[in-house]
Amino acid sequence: MITALAGGVGAARLLAPLCRAVGPARVHAVVNTGDDEVLHGLHISPDLDTVTYTLAGAANPTTGWGLAGETWRVMEALERYRGQTWFRLGDRDLATHLYRTQRLAEGAPLSAVAGEIAKAWGIRSHLMPMTDDEVRTRVTLAGGEEVSFQDYFVRRRHSVAVTGLRFEGAATSRPAPGVLEAVAGAERLIICPSNPLVSIAPILAVPGVEEAVRARRQDVVAISPIVAGAALKGPADRLLAELGHEASVVGVARLWAPIAGTLIVDEADAGLARQVEAEGMDCLVAPTVMDRPGVGESLARLAVGDTLSAS
Amino acid sequence: MITALAGGVGAARLLAPLCRAVGPARVHAVVNTGDDEVLHGLHISPDLDTVTYTLAGAANPTTGWGLAGETWRVMEALERYRGQTWFRLGDRDLATHLYRTQRLAEGAPLSAVAGEIAKAWGIRSHLMPMTDDEVRTRVTLAGGEEVSFQDYFVRRRHSVAVTGLRFEGAATSRPAPGVLEAVAGAERLIICPSNPLVSIAPILAVPGVEEAVRARRQDVVAISPIVAGAALKGPADRLLAELGHEASVVGVARLWAPIAGTLIVDEADAGLARQVEAEGMDCLVAPTVMDRPGVGESLARLAVGDTLSAS
Repeated sequence: MITALAGGVGAARLLAPLCRAVGPARVHAVVNTGDDEVLHGLHISPDLDTVTYTLAGAANPTTGWGLAGETWRVMEALERYRGQTWFRLGDRDLATHLYRTQRLAEGAPLSAVAGEIAKAWGIRSHLMPMTDDEVRTRVTLAGGEEVSFQDYFVRRRHSVAVTGLRFEGAATSRPAPGVLEAVAGAERLIICPSNPLVSIAPILAVPGVEEAVRARRQDVVAISPIVAGAALKGPADRLLAELGHEASVVGVARLWAPIAGTLIVDEADAGLARQVEAEGMDCLVAPTVMDRPGVGESLARLAVGDTLSAS
Repeated sequence: MITALAGGVGAARLLAPLCRAVGPARVHAVVNTGDDEVLHGLHISPDLDTVTYTLAGAANPTTGWGLAGETWRVMEALERYRGQTWFRLGDRDLATHLYRTQRLAEGAPLSAVAGEIAKAWGIRSHLMPMTDDEVRTRVTLAGGEEVSFQDYFVRRRHSVAVTGLRFEGAATSRPAPGVLEAVAGAERLIICPSNPLVSIAPILAVPGVEEAVRARRQDVVAISPIVAGAALKGPADRLLAELGHEASVVGVARLWAPIAGTLIVDEADAGLARQVEAEGMDCLVAPTVMDRPGVGESLARLAVGDTLSAS
């Protein structure tokens, strides 16, 4: 069993080659639901869906989220009403939200629904939300206003300064069924190259999860989402800086050192390996930018230790 | 001001020519919401939407409900999950439900949302739900099971015997803003040729509405939805018989005599005019089957009294 803590696009891009490398049935992914949102009455789980669609080979390869070959009939029609079209929901993607919302209304827990959706896409990996309870990432903007994560991320295109984050509901949430078992029972734990503060931190904020991961520290391998001081995608670099962290692999090492024994950094950051080690982590250097064939699979193999002896 | 009590398809087919006959701005329609349904988390108002789409000239002319030129991408995708696809929601139609649900979640009353949707379609008539409160038509089937109206009507294709109807929530509901004023202030009130028991009765079940209509009895004109003992569409004939009424214009007259002074019956029922009058209603005979051009407009003119002197 290989268990990954996962956000959305960055995580999905690793999980797909990880499944190829170790076999999908061995892969367990504990997925962030802090950026879930209810819009139009529909329960939207962006990270779960991104991971699902990617593992199904159905994701839009350009954006990394949403479905390939998507159509936008519903959103186009919603424009007539000047409705909330800032969160673009494709027609086929909407079916996922309709199904999830209906099942939740029938009393099914989110984890069961995530499993049903994954199964419907033929996925043999084990995808689970971090919790079945409602945890919502709330973002405090520089002006003092607090907004939902999607409001910050999508509606405002994360182009506004952030002064704080909190995970509403986390304190009273419980890990979803299977989460603690997947952490405790894994041969290797991977912290995906997701945004540390808004994708991985919410997972760790669910009571019991961070402790369970820390107990496995020597088997935990994190992959830096920061390469040469910048995020490959999204606002991770900016958020780290705005919230008092260093937007570098060293900053990432300071965040993960308490819970992870190893940090994989990109070759571009080879010169910072000693500083990473000074934070108390082993540092592995490898290509991490999954823009060429084979990089992801090599990275996945490195993360699970297949080539640890060689590095 | 002309005010109509309206269900879905049958009512919409009269309201469109009524608008042409008297001018859309004069027309106020109080629309049944007893068959509203929440499905996939979405608030669906079938009768409001049917009236809206029809008055906008956008309804599917074959079915009478839904939108012309509709596509079904979302429903097709929902089949992957074996989701609830028995209630077919077209892509463009779904946008209406997304908008309505979002606005209700924001705290807008259904009547305000209905007005916004009608305005977005360029409708100058005044469409209002019977109530902003939740009233739900519940159908008791012969086996004893009680189901929602749409479960009976759509899922089971109204091909099961019914032993009872009730309008859950009606007793504590209040008429939507403008409803009582539209009844009290109308020059003429029309009871549309809708199903008396499941389309009109829920409107009358909202406290205050039946009394207000009865107070205008001499100005109330009902159009029989039963022609030659049968419903033109839907289960009105069957429901009348199953629930102890006569499936004829005489049965309809018995239902409406307490609140309406006049019943318009189809030429096919001319022979029953005296029996209708024996129930205490004036009876007008005219073509009522709106399957030929001009019938609807003549019927509308007759209902509003333009040609009462000639009949």
